[in-house]
Amino acid sequence: MRTQDELLKLINTALNQVDLQKKPVKLYDPIHYVLSIGGKRLRPILCLMACELYDESIEKALQPALALEIFHNFTLLHDDIMDKAEKRRNMDCVHIKWNENVAILSGDAMQLLSYQILNQLPEKQLKNCLSIFTKTAIEVCEGQQYDMDFETQETVDLKEYMEMIRLKTAVLLAASLKMGAIIGGASEEDADHLYQFGIETGFAFQLKDDLLDVYGDTKTFGKKIGGDILCNKKTFLLIQALNKADQATLKKLRYWIEKTDFIPEEKIKAVVEIYDQLNIKDICLCEMEKHQKMAFESLNKISVPEARKKALTELANELMDRKK
Amino acid sequence: MRTQDELLKLINTALNQVDLQKKPVKLYDPIHYVLSIGGKRLRPILCLMACELYDESIEKALQPALALEIFHNFTLLHDDIMDKAEKRRNMDCVHIKWNENVAILSGDAMQLLSYQILNQLPEKQLKNCLSIFTKTAIEVCEGQQYDMDFETQETVDLKEYMEMIRLKTAVLLAASLKMGAIIGGASEEDADHLYQFGIETGFAFQLKDDLLDVYGDTKTFGKKIGGDILCNKKTFLLIQALNKADQATLKKLRYWIEKTDFIPEEKIKAVVEIYDQLNIKDICLCEMEKHQKMAFESLNKISVPEARKKALTELANELMDRKK
Repeated sequence: MRTQDELLKLINTALNQVDLQKKPVKLYDPIHYVLSIGGKRLRPILCLMACELYDESIEKALQPALALEIFHNFTLLHDDIMDKAEKRRNMDCVHIKWNENVAILSGDAMQLLSYQILNQLPEKQLKNCLSIFTKTAIEVCEGQQYDMDFETQETVDLKEYMEMIRLKTAVLLAASLKMGAIIGGASEEDADHLYQFGIETGFAFQLKDDLLDVYGDTKTFGKKIGGDILCNKKTFLLIQALNKADQATLKKLRYWIEKTDFIPEEKIKAVVEIYDQLNIKDICLCEMEKHQKMAFESLNKISVPEARKKALTELANELMDRKK
Repeated sequence: MRTQDELLKLINTALNQVDLQKKPVKLYDPIHYVLSIGGKRLRPILCLMACELYDESIEKALQPALALEIFHNFTLLHDDIMDKAEKRRNMDCVHIKWNENVAILSGDAMQLLSYQILNQLPEKQLKNCLSIFTKTAIEVCEGQQYDMDFETQETVDLKEYMEMIRLKTAVLLAASLKMGAIIGGASEEDADHLYQFGIETGFAFQLKDDLLDVYGDTKTFGKKIGGDILCNKKTFLLIQALNKADQATLKKLRYWIEKTDFIPEEKIKAVVEIYDQLNIKDICLCEMEKHQKMAFESLNKISVPEARKKALTELANELMDRKK
């Protein structure tokens, strides 16, 4: 079984071989830029690991794995325009380094590039994989729209929030696993269990993200702590706090949400105090662990010797223990 | 053989049946809006006509025809953001009616929707059609980038211009024909001749567009005459004028191109005078007819009784004779 590092190398080598030295340069340079910045390569790794559960020759899943990574990076590229973000992985976003038009168009081309790569699949698997991929990609767009809708919605209930993160984050992780499994030769049942493992891992992954923004360690987190608090992002933490707060606490929380003129550190401190008072960290940890448990229950159900599941188990645990 | 009107009805009925009454509404409403505004439906008509050359049961090409139309409308949607256009077919553009983020994201979803619809093709044709579709879609992005590059380029030579319109306009018409032909059961050779017919028709089509902007009839054109002149768009006409002008005329032309403060009617009048003096209209007409002739030469080569080619011949002639 390959180690994570071996898979990462395999993926990055293959990504480097995608021919992007093409014209017009303003279309292809940004794609090359985005793909060379790096990242966890989580989706292609999941795809390859799922394939390896059933078949040692994971090369057959390598191109689809790249397609998933390229699609994911396309969503980041367009999301960054929509969110008016300036940095991604400590580098200028494409719409900052070039301009917005370049970012829109090279993103469009990345989406197409992912289909071009997917189309290398053997005919036998093509239709099925394309169907999963496209359904998932549309869901990711739906998730992004819900996320933007939430910004202007006064209240978001927890169910809506969980559905949003299912669409925006979980389904692509799940589809990566399912596609890898199918390419490896898994039964439909196993592929579905792995999909469910991906969904639950995705939930836990996003809850961890929400937690890190507030309770992460400044030294290891990489980004500034409290970013979500400053922009009133409706995370699991904020939604829960709004749900659990008594009248007096709610008033305090609303005061900070509505305040337009504030010292960042003060707002973060005040909101974290409310979270602490309401025990929000534990509630989120508990929810996260619940989904992690469900993830492993799904992983348990697949018809593969336990020893082979080690890579996925380790990866899922690492995602939950991560410091950034 | 179906008339153009019959095909148009078939297409619009099928487009209406695409389920877009979905949530989130800000993702799906703009797609529904864009697809219901109408348009010539040129690409799906070409796809169905090409299919009908070989097979009466054109229903099998209907879904791919829709995919082509949806993809085309996606490009218009994103192009309008990039060009900061406000109106399309006399209606507000999506980024005006909603906002830019909505336009970016619903465009992304349209691209995916076209793949979802394409994936309904039988396995036997799927890989081939997807390969043509995706290659073409990427070329359309390349064409759009070249078009944007030209805006800031001081000079554009004619060869570059023709390559840009090949990518931005001609290849999608050509691919529509080729896909329809393949689905209808054409030989590879015939499919390639039809592709070439589409390329040459596309060239002629765009040259006609360039002509109409300057020499169209105000009463029938629909848009304001001279729009390209006012924004110094590097059309076939302008590029040729810059090529053909003597020193004195070039100075006059450059004066109007560089002038930032002008009365629109005066600039249009002055530039058209230069075009007239240089005989640009005839040069463009001549180039247009050259491509039309080449188009028909390709159409002649396909192994189909002449009578069956009538629909495509008529359509190509109509495109050249159109008033808007």
